[in-house]
Amino acid sequence: MQPHCPDDPARRRAVDDDHFHDQCGVFGIFGHPEAAHLTYLGLYALQHRGQESAGIVASDGVRLRPHKGMGLVNDVFDEESLRALTGHAAIGHTRYSTAGDTIERNAQPILIDCHRGPIALGHNGNLVNAALLRDELEAAGSIFQSTSDSEVILHLYARSHRARLEDAVAASLSKIMGAFSLLFLTRDALVAVRDPWGFRPLVLGRVDGAYLACSETCALDLIDAEYVREVQPGEMVVIDRQGLRSFRPFPPEPLRHCVFEHVYFARPDSLVFGRNVLASRLELGRQLALQAPAQADVVVPVPDSGMGAALGYARGSGLPFALGLIRNHYVGRTFIEPRQKLRSFGVRIKLNPVRSVLEGQRVVLIDDSIVRGTTSRKIVRMVRAGGAREVHVRISSPPTIGPCHYGIDTPRKKDLIAATHTLDEIRAHIEADSLAYLSHDGLLRAVDDAAGQRHCTACFSGRYPVAVAQNADEWQLDLFEKVGG
Amino acid sequence: MQPHCPDDPARRRAVDDDHFHDQCGVFGIFGHPEAAHLTYLGLYALQHRGQESAGIVASDGVRLRPHKGMGLVNDVFDEESLRALTGHAAIGHTRYSTAGDTIERNAQPILIDCHRGPIALGHNGNLVNAALLRDELEAAGSIFQSTSDSEVILHLYARSHRARLEDAVAASLSKIMGAFSLLFLTRDALVAVRDPWGFRPLVLGRVDGAYLACSETCALDLIDAEYVREVQPGEMVVIDRQGLRSFRPFPPEPLRHCVFEHVYFARPDSLVFGRNVLASRLELGRQLALQAPAQADVVVPVPDSGMGAALGYARGSGLPFALGLIRNHYVGRTFIEPRQKLRSFGVRIKLNPVRSVLEGQRVVLIDDSIVRGTTSRKIVRMVRAGGAREVHVRISSPPTIGPCHYGIDTPRKKDLIAATHTLDEIRAHIEADSLAYLSHDGLLRAVDDAAGQRHCTACFSGRYPVAVAQNADEWQLDLFEKVGG
Amino acid sequence: MQPHCPDDPARRRAVDDDHFHDQCGVFGIFGHPEAAHLTYLGLYALQHRGQESAGIVASDGVRLRPHKGMGLVNDVFDEESLRALTGHAAIGHTRYSTAGDTIERNAQPILIDCHRGPIALGHNGNLVNAALLRDELEAAGSIFQSTSDSEVILHLYARSHRARLEDAVAASLSKIMGAFSLLFLTRDALVAVRDPWGFRPLVLGRVDGAYLACSETCALDLIDAEYVREVQPGEMVVIDRQGLRSFRPFPPEPLRHCVFEHVYFARPDSLVFGRNVLASRLELGRQLALQAPAQADVVVPVPDSGMGAALGYARGSGLPFALGLIRNHYVGRTFIEPRQKLRSFGVRIKLNPVRSVLEGQRVVLIDDSIVRGTTSRKIVRMVRAGGAREVHVRISSPPTIGPCHYGIDTPRKKDLIAATHTLDEIRAHIEADSLAYLSHDGLLRAVDDAAGQRHCTACFSGRYPVAVAQNADEWQLDLFEKVGG
Amino acid sequence: MQPHCPDDPARRRAVDDDHFHDQCGVFGIFGHPEAAHLTYLGLYALQHRGQESAGIVASDGVRLRPHKGMGLVNDVFDEESLRALTGHAAIGHTRYSTAGDTIERNAQPILIDCHRGPIALGHNGNLVNAALLRDELEAAGSIFQSTSDSEVILHLYARSHRARLEDAVAASLSKIMGAFSLLFLTRDALVAVRDPWGFRPLVLGRVDGAYLACSETCALDLIDAEYVREVQPGEMVVIDRQGLRSFRPFPPEPLRHCVFEHVYFARPDSLVFGRNVLASRLELGRQLALQAPAQADVVVPVPDSGMGAALGYARGSGLPFALGLIRNHYVGRTFIEPRQKLRSFGVRIKLNPVRSVLEGQRVVLIDDSIVRGTTSRKIVRMVRAGGAREVHVRISSPPTIGPCHYGIDTPRKKDLIAATHTLDEIRAHIEADSLAYLSHDGLLRAVDDAAGQRHCTACFSGRYPVAVAQNADEWQLDLFEKVGG
Repeated sequence: MQPHCPDDPARRRAVDDDHFHDQCGVFGIFGHPEAAHLTYLGLYALQHRGQESAGIVASDGVRLRPHKGMGLVNDVFDEESLRALTGHAAIGHTRYSTAGDTIERNAQPILIDCHRGPIALGHNGNLVNAALLRDELEAAGSIFQSTSDSEVILHLYARSHRARLEDAVAASLSKIMGAFSLLFLTRDALVAVRDPWGFRPLVLGRVDGAYLACSETCALDLIDAEYVREVQPGEMVVIDRQGLRSFRPFPPEPLRHCVFEHVYFARPDSLVFGRNVLASRLELGRQLALQAPAQADVVVPVPDSGMGAALGYARGSGLPFALGLIRNHYVGRTFIEPRQKLRSFGVRIKLNPVRSVLEGQRVVLIDDSIVRGTTSRKIVRMVRAGGAREVHVRISSPPTIGPCHYGIDTPRKKDLIAATHTLDEIRAHIEADSLAYLSHDGLLRAVDDAAGQRHCTACFSGRYPVAVAQNADEWQLDLFEKVGG
Repeated sequence: MQPHCPDDPARRRAVDDDHFHDQCGVFGIFGHPEAAHLTYLGLYALQHRGQESAGIVASDGVRLRPHKGMGLVNDVFDEESLRALTGHAAIGHTRYSTAGDTIERNAQPILIDCHRGPIALGHNGNLVNAALLRDELEAAGSIFQSTSDSEVILHLYARSHRARLEDAVAASLSKIMGAFSLLFLTRDALVAVRDPWGFRPLVLGRVDGAYLACSETCALDLIDAEYVREVQPGEMVVIDRQGLRSFRPFPPEPLRHCVFEHVYFARPDSLVFGRNVLASRLELGRQLALQAPAQADVVVPVPDSGMGAALGYARGSGLPFALGLIRNHYVGRTFIEPRQKLRSFGVRIKLNPVRSVLEGQRVVLIDDSIVRGTTSRKIVRMVRAGGAREVHVRISSPPTIGPCHYGIDTPRKKDLIAATHTLDEIRAHIEADSLAYLSHDGLLRAVDDAAGQRHCTACFSGRYPVAVAQNADEWQLDLFEKVGG
Repeated sequence: MQPHCPDDPARRRAVDDDHFHDQCGVFGIFGHPEAAHLTYLGLYALQHRGQESAGIVASDGVRLRPHKGMGLVNDVFDEESLRALTGHAAIGHTRYSTAGDTIERNAQPILIDCHRGPIALGHNGNLVNAALLRDELEAAGSIFQSTSDSEVILHLYARSHRARLEDAVAASLSKIMGAFSLLFLTRDALVAVRDPWGFRPLVLGRVDGAYLACSETCALDLIDAEYVREVQPGEMVVIDRQGLRSFRPFPPEPLRHCVFEHVYFARPDSLVFGRNVLASRLELGRQLALQAPAQADVVVPVPDSGMGAALGYARGSGLPFALGLIRNHYVGRTFIEPRQKLRSFGVRIKLNPVRSVLEGQRVVLIDDSIVRGTTSRKIVRMVRAGGAREVHVRISSPPTIGPCHYGIDTPRKKDLIAATHTLDEIRAHIEADSLAYLSHDGLLRAVDDAAGQRHCTACFSGRYPVAVAQNADEWQLDLFEKVGG
Repeated sequence: MQPHCPDDPARRRAVDDDHFHDQCGVFGIFGHPEAAHLTYLGLYALQHRGQESAGIVASDGVRLRPHKGMGLVNDVFDEESLRALTGHAAIGHTRYSTAGDTIERNAQPILIDCHRGPIALGHNGNLVNAALLRDELEAAGSIFQSTSDSEVILHLYARSHRARLEDAVAASLSKIMGAFSLLFLTRDALVAVRDPWGFRPLVLGRVDGAYLACSETCALDLIDAEYVREVQPGEMVVIDRQGLRSFRPFPPEPLRHCVFEHVYFARPDSLVFGRNVLASRLELGRQLALQAPAQADVVVPVPDSGMGAALGYARGSGLPFALGLIRNHYVGRTFIEPRQKLRSFGVRIKLNPVRSVLEGQRVVLIDDSIVRGTTSRKIVRMVRAGGAREVHVRISSPPTIGPCHYGIDTPRKKDLIAATHTLDEIRAHIEADSLAYLSHDGLLRAVDDAAGQRHCTACFSGRYPVAVAQNADEWQLDLFEKVGG
């Protein structure tokens, strides 16, 4: 391996991006002669769900072989490494980079060996009781080689003595709480599991007679696979040579789909929770136009995050839609700043205003959310510098007042501007002429869940459907399952 | 250097992209302590003009130092290499990759030494008499180390015995014919030159008291530089410690701005030839709507090339604008195909249809051009597979019937579908329900040149403003200038 | 990480090298502000003990940070990666590449987290009961992320509930059998342990007031550290802020130093088991001259392995020493073969005969051992092609008739030519005019152990001092220690 | 290309190496299906002649394709790059790194295009009139893209109008003065030329019916090629489909073989100037023993440079030869120093004393030369620290008092300790108990040239066989040859 030779961190600067971020995308396929190649393509389609690292583990029925690395799918894999991933089954994973944790040993899938044989795991989500489980496992003598909560699941699996794969997986999952869409790969089976709340998406597809499971339908489309259905919340699907078998290892829970998948994370062309994402975004914008009209001349999205909602707002308001900000898609995650920081490049490296569109206009500026507010202020200033007479910011979701504990990278509560400031303070901070958010009701209506019975909106409402464990007593773990238990 | 280790070419496949391509972007600055850093940022903004290679040469008044490489700006430069580019002046270049010619020694800027001292050159454009000049120079004993026509210019410069820099540059330029926006860097001067027809753009800016020149204004915006004016067609601007001096070394010629810069090449946020590109594209779409209406339900762009025109078409036609195709911006220039090519991935790796938008709709599909037609057919099929009932293709420029000789990478005439097929044959080939192009008049009206007095439209009209040299006799070159000549 | 991009394995060929190979070198230091840097230098000095991978884990008292990679020390580390390894304590490891196992996840040190906190381990040696322990640990629910037997030790450590570090380490070591020179690094201590037989070397040193432990004294010399003493067989040394404390956790065993360290593995300038290696090799050669004289004109070493013994043979025999074979030290581990394999390059890429030395001579060719015999035959042919009239092969150790189970990479017994062929068959196979090995007695005399009371000679004698476990019953493991047990 | 990412130069430190260095090795072959592969292997064998960069240009009869890079042959080439170098003819080059000039564009072979078609050049040597020729060529309009004097030769070639290749090459060579062993490759011919003084070596070989030319015979041996003869001083050999033709384009000059090839540069197993190098070194040592005996116990070489001479000295003096210093062959050209430079690592990273050999001994320490003296002092100190009672330094060549102008990298005269200090001052500086050099006569005797009629000894004697041009008038160049001239 050639060791990474990074630049001086003081000179490299991250491109401004003030969004919540999904932490992972997963893809797995069983029974296809090109399993690793299709997984690679599937990860390509899921790249938006994580750009820190990518990895694939493939099985040829005897051995499981991994290839992982830091960077985009395109950087991590080449012809050589794909060719080495022989076999008819594979799972893959893309991972999002959170600030302090960009380390290679956290890259997934995790591949381990245990008394049940080798097994690999790719995880999208977050366990609320991972720390407790880890403490308990460590107390029982387990060692951990990553800081990922997913490693906990494999320890639980390894401690199961059930004979059948499905029973062993089910036993291990009976201990974990939280959000998880999981893919397991053993020598001769692919297992797809989704938590009973259905926090994160997971769908089943079929191509050339082989079954596959992945985070979003856009990965099916790329490889021309047929969409079969969602892995149901609380369902465990085992795919092997006998075909596909479905299990229900969890007690039923109320549905809690992550509404932010529709607001921001998922690709607009995907079906997520059975609903097209772009359709949701158009409706979010339309609802926003109804709730928060503006005396303005033109609707301008912050590209690409505000695109769908801006189109919906334009339709809802009757105002013309216009591209007042252009995004440079060649920008990577970082760039090298001049030493003397003559000026802040921040968001400028990515966005540029179009004077011919903005000059003299009263602009409705649409984005999906405001997290810390600093980037929003830079964009408002940019739009004004581009000639806009007035800038009316409209946000296609409610104020984000709480962190996510279910697999989304969010700042702490104290860093969420809407958790600590009034609407008018935020407006003043971002220097907008007016500011409005979509209401909680509007949000739910836009995803066709007016009663709020299917979605998790914890980051907007503060109502967390699964509590975060505070100490071990709450959970009464019994890691060492009894025979027959 | 770590040598490049490419994949098996048979397995790497280029992502489908059927457009004419600009061959270069240039950026130069004089008199700034962060010259190389600002040039790096400028190249970032100009990345769309060329993704094959990038390079910078910087001058500290004594030495000129180069750093070049294959790949995107982000790949070629790191903190270390930028730091080594010391000095107050620099020029940079991004280059487009044409099929057979992706070789490192063609990367620019070219840096040479001659009796006048070291000099570097970055060139956007194409010389029509380069082959003749090269033959004549070789006959006179010159050696060439690249296949780039730009090297010819440096040979001519080196053969000049004029005392003053401006005279030497002017003398060398008096021999060349064609399209050129050039930046020269010597130890103590930056020279920006534009051919008398003004084929390719070149603008002047100012930041922190330093002058700079670059292809498009979006590079000025990124570094917060002020737009001064265009380098005039036929103008040579010398920037040194004395400031900026303007010369007019060429006999006047009629203006021939490349209209394709507005149709496709330039960034929508740039001013090109004094006019905003997005404004032009909106107007191209509006003219198209007037000339070629469609009985349809929705206007869908091929992203990103058809975006501006689709918005204009929607406005012109009154039909709703919709995002019926989603583009994956993480896709690089190539990807690794499965070995058994179970199916063609072609355009699929980049685009995906949105069923919720397209289902049951009569779609007007907007793109800027059709070159070979194969990609268009794939996209039409994709839109139809996405549920569209009818697909009416509308192109925001006239049929492309001839290659470009002025700095654009185009296929040969025989490969241009519009050069060899009737409108209806093309429609049948791309499997559209109807097909219409913008007229030549509409094109010119959209760029505010109804009389056609300022633009080159050779690829649409076949009327080439500067003939391509067939043999040396036509040009009567006299490479060895007489003293006093 | 930039993924490895290997060449076609069919075209890359390993340079001929027919020796037993040591599997590891270790280096650790505590209480030095440049801990990681000195470890890096120490690994440089120990590079001959393993060239597959290199790694360092450093502790700043709070966090343990790893950097590992495939390749030589020089390839794996750069300024950036060393700078990131902050802290006053560090351990490092170099690892030898065995054929099927060149995988990155086996690189050491292994860093894990457990209920005792983070700990890293570097291991030189081999456990004879690793497979059994692994089976038992897996049965108890442990998961393994490498195929290295060293991971077993960390599992045992993690399962200990003793309060003090030394007790926990001792408890874990009480289960393992075989050869081990170990370095553990915790947040605030360095632990060095050597098995009771003393199979592999491990010495203590001191520099700038800080203690260090490493495989060979050549690593001390490089950083100008003082040699303190060996870590005694069966000794556990704990180094922390309180200084150095010594423990004796194992029942005493007879000394069994690996005699092959003197024959081939260790660097000639090192003290190993308290004795200079070059002195041993000279004496091996001298004994060989006494036991197996030859009617010859000149003594020629196979460089570099036969150098010391050849000098000793020359002294013992009175024959002149000569450099009849020259070694190209720029050769790496592999090279790219021509496709049509017009001829075998084998050993030629590394060695070349000197005709002026060999022409017409009766040559005594000295090497340290013959493993498979194929390389020896190539060298004998090469010497003859270089002009030698006769080639008398003399080997400075006895015939290698058995594999090593104590940390040396050896072929299986059936591939050891001396295990399956008579002396004369070997002579005929390697095409020598005569062949003689040093006797077992001569070997022991040369390392000043005439009674054979201190060395393991299992690979020569077939007498294995620690039996290899055949099944679990033999060992009666009790992995889950009782409190107070 | 992935750009080079070097470490902070302040932290990287070159390994101490105080020798003159050869600047290049060349290898070329014509008419072999594996031309590039054999050239790659040949460069492997010639790696000691240059480690900065390596390159190959291959011809398939139509195109010439280059691959070059910084680093060792092993780093620059992989299977992919070799495979791309198709064709039946190739030339290769390894280049030595001089301090300020480690730039990629100086890597050879240089490949250019001119009116005669493409041609590549690899050069071992140095032109004494390169600067003058460059000035004159630049005055005549030539441009230069490297700082290498070899580019001058290609300019001269390109300016020739002779019809036949041999005449054009000869015409260009008629202008150059100095040391040159050259290989040219055109589409259909390989040309090997050696200057009339024969400064640098160049030999002809044959393998599988194909002719080849290379710097040293060790490259022939590696690929099992037959040694044919030297390219004669002043000879130009043209190899093409018609076979091999010999020309004599130069007026005869007295032979001036570089004696330092025998003293240090060439590989001991090579024939150079028709004589085995190791034989010369043994004789240098023997002469030294006769001229400068020492009251000592043991003869110790500085490895590897002093090895041959030390063996000769031991034979000549009757003193025992011993390995008192061990060299670590894994060391690259640089290593990373600790930040606080607690102590100097200098030569220690490469050499280590063996106490068992040195303890209490009076040591004769043999090296080939002393350049600046600083490294010698470190080694003397190291030997003394290793226990030596006395250190008597003996140098197997005369004092180096002048720089080389014929292709060797040497310091300036003021930095040569022997040019500015008396013998006793040098002895004191290096802290030796005694110091002696071989006499000039002894040197010549050792290379069988007692009369001094065949060798250049300028660096020892100050007598330069070809004067270095001071200004253009001395040379009366006439670059533009007349027809018929």
